[in-house]
Amino acid sequence: MLARKTLHAHSRIWLRLNRPQSQSQTTTTRHPIRCSSTLVVPFTADRYHVRRENFAKVTADDAKVFREIVGDHGVITDAADLEGFNVDWLKICRGQSKVVLRPKTTQQVSDILRYCNDRKLAVCPQGGNTGLVGGSVPVFDEVVLSMGLMNRIVSLDPMSGVLITEAGAVLETLENYASERGRVVPLDLGAKGSCHIGGNVATNAGGLRLLRFGSLHSNVLGLETVLADGTILPFGSNMRKDNTGYHLHHLFIGSEGTLGVVTQVALLCPPKPTAVSVCYLGLNSFEDVLKCYKEAGDSLNDIISAFEFLDNSCYQVSCEKHKILPPLNPFPFYVLMEVSGWSPKAQSERLDSLLERLMSSGLVADGVVADEPSKIRTFWEIREGVAEALTRRGYVYKYDLSIPKREMYSLVKTSESVWAARSTSAAVTAIWVTNNLHLNVLTSDYFPEVTKRLEPYIFEWTSQHKGSVSAAHGLGFKKRNAIKYSQSPTAIALMKKLKQL
Amino acid sequence: MLARKTLHAHSRIWLRLNRPQSQSQTTTTRHPIRCSSTLVVPFTADRYHVRRENFAKVTADDAKVFREIVGDHGVITDAADLEGFNVDWLKICRGQSKVVLRPKTTQQVSDILRYCNDRKLAVCPQGGNTGLVGGSVPVFDEVVLSMGLMNRIVSLDPMSGVLITEAGAVLETLENYASERGRVVPLDLGAKGSCHIGGNVATNAGGLRLLRFGSLHSNVLGLETVLADGTILPFGSNMRKDNTGYHLHHLFIGSEGTLGVVTQVALLCPPKPTAVSVCYLGLNSFEDVLKCYKEAGDSLNDIISAFEFLDNSCYQVSCEKHKILPPLNPFPFYVLMEVSGWSPKAQSERLDSLLERLMSSGLVADGVVADEPSKIRTFWEIREGVAEALTRRGYVYKYDLSIPKREMYSLVKTSESVWAARSTSAAVTAIWVTNNLHLNVLTSDYFPEVTKRLEPYIFEWTSQHKGSVSAAHGLGFKKRNAIKYSQSPTAIALMKKLKQL
Repeated sequence: MLARKTLHAHSRIWLRLNRPQSQSQTTTTRHPIRCSSTLVVPFTADRYHVRRENFAKVTADDAKVFREIVGDHGVITDAADLEGFNVDWLKICRGQSKVVLRPKTTQQVSDILRYCNDRKLAVCPQGGNTGLVGGSVPVFDEVVLSMGLMNRIVSLDPMSGVLITEAGAVLETLENYASERGRVVPLDLGAKGSCHIGGNVATNAGGLRLLRFGSLHSNVLGLETVLADGTILPFGSNMRKDNTGYHLHHLFIGSEGTLGVVTQVALLCPPKPTAVSVCYLGLNSFEDVLKCYKEAGDSLNDIISAFEFLDNSCYQVSCEKHKILPPLNPFPFYVLMEVSGWSPKAQSERLDSLLERLMSSGLVADGVVADEPSKIRTFWEIREGVAEALTRRGYVYKYDLSIPKREMYSLVKTSESVWAARSTSAAVTAIWVTNNLHLNVLTSDYFPEVTKRLEPYIFEWTSQHKGSVSAAHGLGFKKRNAIKYSQSPTAIALMKKLKQL
Repeated sequence: MLARKTLHAHSRIWLRLNRPQSQSQTTTTRHPIRCSSTLVVPFTADRYHVRRENFAKVTADDAKVFREIVGDHGVITDAADLEGFNVDWLKICRGQSKVVLRPKTTQQVSDILRYCNDRKLAVCPQGGNTGLVGGSVPVFDEVVLSMGLMNRIVSLDPMSGVLITEAGAVLETLENYASERGRVVPLDLGAKGSCHIGGNVATNAGGLRLLRFGSLHSNVLGLETVLADGTILPFGSNMRKDNTGYHLHHLFIGSEGTLGVVTQVALLCPPKPTAVSVCYLGLNSFEDVLKCYKEAGDSLNDIISAFEFLDNSCYQVSCEKHKILPPLNPFPFYVLMEVSGWSPKAQSERLDSLLERLMSSGLVADGVVADEPSKIRTFWEIREGVAEALTRRGYVYKYDLSIPKREMYSLVKTSESVWAARSTSAAVTAIWVTNNLHLNVLTSDYFPEVTKRLEPYIFEWTSQHKGSVSAAHGLGFKKRNAIKYSQSPTAIALMKKLKQL
């Protein structure tokens, strides 16, 4: 058997990765929405030609009531301070809200919503504002309900692993809290330094641990929510098993703030694996990626916790932006694979034995393995940093699709001609195991005619291949009209009725 | 380290278990609803004093229409044939339906429901009729919509593990189908030889694999359903990630047939573990069970796939009924623990090392381990056979509760006086890891005053301890009024609105 050390040495570039962590930006210190940008983001209403509905406008009297509810410190009206709440992380959407409210209690959320409902003021609930579909910022002058001050962690039961937290807690804070107690928060994503657990629930965020721990539908045991009319809908039992009536909290998972505001979350946190290894593999063809996945799945299915796919554009752009020395020389495709568990020795042996097989058969052209936390972090940073790196290059037409694995790359291959104009380029990553293809088409600026060339082409292609036009990011503002490509008219009609409840 | 062989030998009784499988009834050949019984089950309407609502009655004209929809063979009206559809598995509830319909296609289900809706005929959808809360049989003379003929398995994708099947497929048939293809159906329960996957979904069945694979909310990727007015609500994308609109299928999981009828299911089937071991442990106190769980959780958390708890009554009654030689001498409490995975050697070593520790510290008084499939089956049979064994002893007041682990047994301990009359006895099992306590109170026959002594006492106690009054079985007929102990008035009001959609 090829020894672990030999595998490390296989790629000489590996050695150069042994540098102080501080040389690269880490995910944990990035706070995307606070980044300054030289781009001026046009108003959403102007860029996308949408018309405001007949909602009331915030008056001085309203502001007075808001101050009574949340206090002076809970009301933001200063133009400079409003900026970060009006512009989305991708710098594509800009709302025109004149007031941001920052409640500290569920009762305050209820009072705000009841008042706004009575006054017919539109409300935009906002978590960490890290969404990618323009769903977390106002489109017009909605009242922004920012959940950032409701960030108290209530409890973590050591026996059951159930974490109860307010919705505004930052994901990374929860992760650290759970980790110190031998538990792991069952979702993880690039935006964890800013995103809120409430926003994660509202958008059914998937992220990097879905393969191992399942979706939020598996792990959210209960929610406290406030409906649009101010009604507080408290937790059910927070038990793993509760079959008393409809499982209402599942309706709020992924509802993107359209049914109510999540104020507290009960989340099942599994025990934290004690041994983790991550490897980067370089591959020459998409066909090889498919075969590599089959082999890895067969050999490692109980310990594999991530299998991600990047093309060379994403890999290079991310390494460059985040000042990371590429762990491998250029290849057309890369796979990032993680294994984790509690039997370090058996786990390493199985991973090494698989990698040896993959490399001697030629399926994998080159590879490096990391066992040490700081190196693992760097490996993940390349993957997690793709979105940010691309955004800095111009306008990104982002598509977040679920597509059957065999077909995943054919969308990119067969349709390059569609976007081969305006000096655009395409960059692709995929959360492979969950069939989630992230297709990014880059241009120097926003051109409506590029949108027309891409849509509905991509949506129709996805629909024909029985995929989903929004795998993870949700519909938000930008994909709101694409729902018909993934849902039947009957289902959409039922959703509309639900919304009216 | 204590060798595996020594552990086997530790309990001499183990050796006596090495007998031909045929000496005991196996779960896989039991078909509970076909058992004959000498007990005459009173009509539900009489026993529980409930009044029929103002629905129409089935006429000869209706029967003619039904024959046009499903053909002569799809309509059952013969009294003897109706019996099995009117009486529940526990022999506690008896409906008075005069007609059972057996559709073969989704369109037929739709035609039936549309017609019944227009005619104001009440309908009772029925799967395998293995439910324990009287939810699967008619209360009065509802039209029974039996799904048994819609049992076609459509496909199992080898790459993704997504199984698509009609709702009337029997769970065990699916299990065998998946197993032959290296996959495992992510739920398993005692009734698998009869229950339908559609019924499992409608009742959010939990079962024996929940700990490892999560609930149906984790594993059901899509549903085809038919609403009460006959509208067919087709699948969404069946992808693991699909964030386009509300996640409607989660609303149907656990809705117990009140929102519509499940006609097809897309179910994620994980790879099948290749190595399984099961052990029975004898313990002297509930405190020891708690400690044993903590130790097992810490040591085996990635490979543990079941941790079940039985008291001596359940254990003895089940062994006796199913003619199984008890694997251990009598103890006040037993734990059945299963580990499964793909690293047989590492797995065995970890289990043995834990058991050695538990036994040398005195936490576990005695124990036996089984690695061989037929022995594993026998071990499970003791646990799975409890419900049937108890039922044969008289009337069972069944409570299926979620209770925080530390409090689980105090309900039994502190309230024995409540049922210490009418020569009753209590028997307890628990799916430990999911906090699911099954409390069975036995009497020679049904006595309304025993119900009055038990209820609302047990429900109130559970509610005070923040548990759920129906962890797994659902509300059905028998627990329909107990919902208020686990759900807020606001939540119940919202459920009622949803039902009216």
